[in-house]
Amino acid sequence: MIGLCLASIRQKLYQQLSVTAYPEEGLSPLNKLVAVIIVASIVIVTLATEPTIYEPWKDQIIAADITIGILFAIEYILRLWVAGEDPEYKGLIGRIKYAFTLRALLDLLAVLPFFLGFVGGDIFLLRLFRLVRIYTLAKLGDFSIAMKHIKDAVKERYMELFLAFMLAMVVLLISSTVMFLVEGPVQPDKFGSIPRAMWWGIATLTTIGYGDIYPQSALGKFCCSITCLAAIGLIAMPTGIMAAAFSDAFQRHKKTIQDRHHH
Amino acid sequence: MIGLCLASIRQKLYQQLSVTAYPEEGLSPLNKLVAVIIVASIVIVTLATEPTIYEPWKDQIIAADITIGILFAIEYILRLWVAGEDPEYKGLIGRIKYAFTLRALLDLLAVLPFFLGFVGGDIFLLRLFRLVRIYTLAKLGDFSIAMKHIKDAVKERYMELFLAFMLAMVVLLISSTVMFLVEGPVQPDKFGSIPRAMWWGIATLTTIGYGDIYPQSALGKFCCSITCLAAIGLIAMPTGIMAAAFSDAFQRHKKTIQDRHHH
Amino acid sequence: MIGLCLASIRQKLYQQLSVTAYPEEGLSPLNKLVAVIIVASIVIVTLATEPTIYEPWKDQIIAADITIGILFAIEYILRLWVAGEDPEYKGLIGRIKYAFTLRALLDLLAVLPFFLGFVGGDIFLLRLFRLVRIYTLAKLGDFSIAMKHIKDAVKERYMELFLAFMLAMVVLLISSTVMFLVEGPVQPDKFGSIPRAMWWGIATLTTIGYGDIYPQSALGKFCCSITCLAAIGLIAMPTGIMAAAFSDAFQRHKKTIQDRHHH
Amino acid sequence: MIGLCLASIRQKLYQQLSVTAYPEEGLSPLNKLVAVIIVASIVIVTLATEPTIYEPWKDQIIAADITIGILFAIEYILRLWVAGEDPEYKGLIGRIKYAFTLRALLDLLAVLPFFLGFVGGDIFLLRLFRLVRIYTLAKLGDFSIAMKHIKDAVKERYMELFLAFMLAMVVLLISSTVMFLVEGPVQPDKFGSIPRAMWWGIATLTTIGYGDIYPQSALGKFCCSITCLAAIGLIAMPTGIMAAAFSDAFQRHKKTIQDRHHH
Repeated sequence: MIGLCLASIRQKLYQQLSVTAYPEEGLSPLNKLVAVIIVASIVIVTLATEPTIYEPWKDQIIAADITIGILFAIEYILRLWVAGEDPEYKGLIGRIKYAFTLRALLDLLAVLPFFLGFVGGDIFLLRLFRLVRIYTLAKLGDFSIAMKHIKDAVKERYMELFLAFMLAMVVLLISSTVMFLVEGPVQPDKFGSIPRAMWWGIATLTTIGYGDIYPQSALGKFCCSITCLAAIGLIAMPTGIMAAAFSDAFQRHKKTIQDRHHH
Repeated sequence: MIGLCLASIRQKLYQQLSVTAYPEEGLSPLNKLVAVIIVASIVIVTLATEPTIYEPWKDQIIAADITIGILFAIEYILRLWVAGEDPEYKGLIGRIKYAFTLRALLDLLAVLPFFLGFVGGDIFLLRLFRLVRIYTLAKLGDFSIAMKHIKDAVKERYMELFLAFMLAMVVLLISSTVMFLVEGPVQPDKFGSIPRAMWWGIATLTTIGYGDIYPQSALGKFCCSITCLAAIGLIAMPTGIMAAAFSDAFQRHKKTIQDRHHH
Repeated sequence: MIGLCLASIRQKLYQQLSVTAYPEEGLSPLNKLVAVIIVASIVIVTLATEPTIYEPWKDQIIAADITIGILFAIEYILRLWVAGEDPEYKGLIGRIKYAFTLRALLDLLAVLPFFLGFVGGDIFLLRLFRLVRIYTLAKLGDFSIAMKHIKDAVKERYMELFLAFMLAMVVLLISSTVMFLVEGPVQPDKFGSIPRAMWWGIATLTTIGYGDIYPQSALGKFCCSITCLAAIGLIAMPTGIMAAAFSDAFQRHKKTIQDRHHH
Repeated sequence: MIGLCLASIRQKLYQQLSVTAYPEEGLSPLNKLVAVIIVASIVIVTLATEPTIYEPWKDQIIAADITIGILFAIEYILRLWVAGEDPEYKGLIGRIKYAFTLRALLDLLAVLPFFLGFVGGDIFLLRLFRLVRIYTLAKLGDFSIAMKHIKDAVKERYMELFLAFMLAMVVLLISSTVMFLVEGPVQPDKFGSIPRAMWWGIATLTTIGYGDIYPQSALGKFCCSITCLAAIGLIAMPTGIMAAAFSDAFQRHKKTIQDRHHH
């Protein structure tokens, strides 16, 4: 009788915990809750590193950390238990098999940091790996189509993007060498070596421009201006490749759907 | 006789005030004037917050504010009156019904701040909500087609844009955590916590680079350089998605027009 | 005899000076020279404003300025003379008619600044208008096709670009108002009014980030971060529209060529 | 007997050293090693310019430099020797002919700097030219298709990109002249001449914004804001052109493959 009741609970829980077994569209309420706890966990860990937040809220943060740790531990045990619903992971041997799937290992990784180190210290930051679990919950409907689009676009044009990156690296090397030669004698602490000039080059070619390092001589400013203009090209190239790749990926997807309707 | 005259005025005014009832293309002269007054109102409110402008022009600004307030009040009453031209809003009950439409409530919102608070103080800023009224005047011809294009493009690729945003957030979290670990001990006031490092991360990944916060150690600069390069990808992704989405939206619109011509 | 010789010279000069009458492809050697002199003139005017360049090179700059002024005067007279080759501008009345064409007026504008003011002073800068003449030389072959592409792309999607601009302005107004309220009390000299906060808003939304003005309070940094992320969208939108518009313009052009080949 | 053995070694070495003769896909193991040594050489030269790295690692850097120099010399001699496998470069005269090919000259250029100058001094930087050799190894499979895509896209739309660049230059000239007139009297050391204002213009129009130079007067900030907005357009234009060009290049390539399959 209790066994039947347990089996029924296990089945319902399986539908709630498994992303693919949930009969309706979207995430199950329980998995939505899990996602919220994961994000909350990340936010708490992040904020706990800030002394001006940690000091006055110390007790609450530790309490929240323990609560989340326990919740994840319970969730892990439940997932292990309901895994038996899947014929593949039936019985004790099945459960051990399940425990060594990537998914279960990621779940375990979300539990472990809690036991490894308490609030404070660098081990505490291992809790950030919990974010990876979001990915295991994310393979659903529109979301997974969009993910496929982005993956396809990047994969299809991987070589072009890599070449654009290589070109950027070459421009970085050339411009940094030129600035080292031109501006190095004027500002030896900032442009006195190629690696130092590269710090300028990166900030310039990505158009970030922190402003901690820039040429002061007229010739240096002239060479820098040419690099600045090259930066536009270096940004336009990957963006253009991505745009064309996405256009391709969307059209391919549309065609696949049309073909499916025709047959 | 006066009733007939009034009815004629009401009809003509209705054509002038209603965006859809105006027989010719574009906005009616009266609605153009309303649009100009709305913009003028926003500009005046904005400038009035600047002491170096407000002090010498105090009297003129208050006068303009009162004038605009009265004009909007008159306009609101007129709109309420001419609403009866529309069979749906006929009679007193129709007017009350009209007064509770989103449009009429927005118009009322444009009048209210004038009575709630005079120049100066934060309530004064509520006048900025008048800008929303521009939107109610904007649903016209080419403008609404362009609006549809942008809406369609964003809506169609909402999921891809959301994923690109999520990816950016993950890169932000990772790079900020790395910089907190690497640069935190060197500049504890700037990189001493993940939220602090995130302020650097946002300025870097969006390529803004205010320059108030940047790494000083060699290892920090190296990690920052990798983040800078990632920034290009994070900007290229949404731009590429938007480009492909607009390309799609324009072609769909073109096809719709062609189909209409064929039938 | 001399008349015949003059007529022959005039004809040859006409072919050299007129952009459309030149029988071969590209610009005629004389017009290439004119283009070089225009660019040289701009460069000299620009450099002459820099005291560290002007002082040591004063004599040479004045000499170059006079030479270029005389060359442009000669060119203007020659253009007036050879205009008679075109049946439309024959005879004295034709020449007067020619002198009032936009082209001839632009050429005159290139000569006048030389007589109006010598080196130094703001009138001197009128010489920069000579740049406009480049445009009259530029309507040629591939160049004019490329110009048509850009014009078409911008024109076709003018409304979408305008809407994207309007959206950017609304985001600028909102973010500046929020920062004025949040950061104003902390940094009254920098965020103490909406126009001042707009200076921050422009530098942030265009991702320039000079770094002279940025929030210092935690809440201000949070609001700023959201604006930074919005900036990516505001840049992605016009870029995406342009990409789709260019894609359209290129394909339309290709189709036009194909249709021409079919008939 | 030894001759036969040597011939066999020469043939195997030829397959390893020649990019096109290698029977399998991708680079041969030996050429991969050469590529790694080239990159290592660049990294070492770059790091050697940094005193804080050079001083403690002096002996190791010099040792690595000599080793790489000797390796490149050996590689050059081997390439000269195995060139005879190619019928075109058989015998002594063939080898001399080979030595004057672009490829062989580049290889020689990679060896020479080692003999011209030792570590330290500007001649030392000539070693950076070794990077060019990477290009001679890079003409392979997917890589060369991607390279063709980028080349095609840029070449096809060269004129549009050039026009976009010209437009940017005109906007730079106009905005710099305006800022020179408006902001020059306020900050003569920063905006006191058009070339100085151009340094601001470049940093602004490329959205880099180092922050060493920005307007301080209200009118200057207003003019600067307009330039900032123009910057978005100037970046959107080349990016849009590139996106459309890549879209074209990818589709052309796809069509070529389809046509090949049909025939």
